[in-house]
Amino acid sequence: MMISARNQFKGTIKNVKLGTVMAEVVVEAGGMEIVSLISLASVESMNLKVGDTVTTIIKSTEVMVAKEL
Amino acid sequence: MMISARNQFKGTIKNVKLGTVMAEVVVEAGGMEIVSLISLASVESMNLKVGDTVTTIIKSTEVMVAKEL
Amino acid sequence: MMISARNQFKGTIKNVKLGTVMAEVVVEAGGMEIVSLISLASVESMNLKVGDTVTTIIKSTEVMVAKEL
Amino acid sequence: MMISARNQFKGTIKNVKLGTVMAEVVVEAGGMEIVSLISLASVESMNLKVGDTVTTIIKSTEVMVAKEL
Amino acid sequence: MMISARNQFKGTIKNVKLGTVMAEVVVEAGGMEIVSLISLASVESMNLKVGDTVTTIIKSTEVMVAKEL
Amino acid sequence: MMISARNQFKGTIKNVKLGTVMAEVVVEAGGMEIVSLISLASVESMNLKVGDTVTTIIKSTEVMVAKEL
Repeated sequence: MMISARNQFKGTIKNVKLGTVMAEVVVEAGGMEIVSLISLASVESMNLKVGDTVTTIIKSTEVMVAKEL
Repeated sequence: MMISARNQFKGTIKNVKLGTVMAEVVVEAGGMEIVSLISLASVESMNLKVGDTVTTIIKSTEVMVAKEL
Repeated sequence: MMISARNQFKGTIKNVKLGTVMAEVVVEAGGMEIVSLISLASVESMNLKVGDTVTTIIKSTEVMVAKEL
Repeated sequence: MMISARNQFKGTIKNVKLGTVMAEVVVEAGGMEIVSLISLASVESMNLKVGDTVTTIIKSTEVMVAKEL
Repeated sequence: MMISARNQFKGTIKNVKLGTVMAEVVVEAGGMEIVSLISLASVESMNLKVGDTVTTIIKSTEVMVAKEL
Repeated sequence: MMISARNQFKGTIKNVKLGTVMAEVVVEAGGMEIVSLISLASVESMNLKVGDTVTTIIKSTEVMVAKEL
């Protein structure tokens, strides 16, 4: 399936922290650590756990750019 | 300056495409290509151009996770 | 592929409007019209055109709720 | 009141799940289930509950498009 | 109408810049300048123009916090 | 450091509410109250607390505009 989101990075889940409504998933992808905040329900329905191979997906409109002065 | 956005990746600008209102900035960071859509005004005021060292910044609430069935 | 975004609606592309950097894609899904603003590059690489069957994807953190007083 | 967000879907609240900071609101709109993650404070101040008629609001820049290969 | 977005700031439009697909609207609100990027179609359908009294609306999940070291 | 996000408002933290995964930070900036939902981990790593001087940062693509009919 092709998705319009231009940023798709494959990696491995390093950590999953569960809240009541939300969950934090930390993915190691290409030497970079990507942190995702998604719903607890998604983590449960997708059975996300440490060691899983996943793809992090980020729409380009959500990416900012910073530059040192 | 510390920013609450958990995803901050340093890289080099590979391409800048200018529109009337928006602009597309492609950054190569740690072997990954990160695409950002920001305003033309930001690109101009920050004088963003190919070769610049920048940091891409992404709030964790904007990161989705996908997993093959 | 399972995606953590909880809102996924299948429909048909009704209109595509191309800008220099961005593009507007209007999808009719289950009697509702869903408007998406994505990059021109995505529309071109995915060869999106009127009549295509697509799925609109929306992360739940991006959905607001309004209620009449 | 007119809002620039192009995606506004009227429906009925099917479920509300409360966390400490966040809350999940599930709305049935035109045969589709729309999931929203908003703050607990908003759910409380708006007194959102199952059976309420509400409108889900989504800015177009937050909508992605996917297409089968 | 109550909206779950916690950040709603009333102000006056100072500038409108039109692109092909997108538009930039600058609003002066309480001594602060708030910049919004929305679709050209919304600006046109809402007939947004300099001098209009408007409310800028921002979902709390989109707000980051930065602190000097 | 220059950041492409056009909306940057300096203020003082008025309240911090901690959840398991998320946290709510209320900032008073120029007479306006800005509410941010970020991860608990960010609040802890940045040691955010009432009275701190901070800057709220909002990407323009996340700002909607509303106008009375």
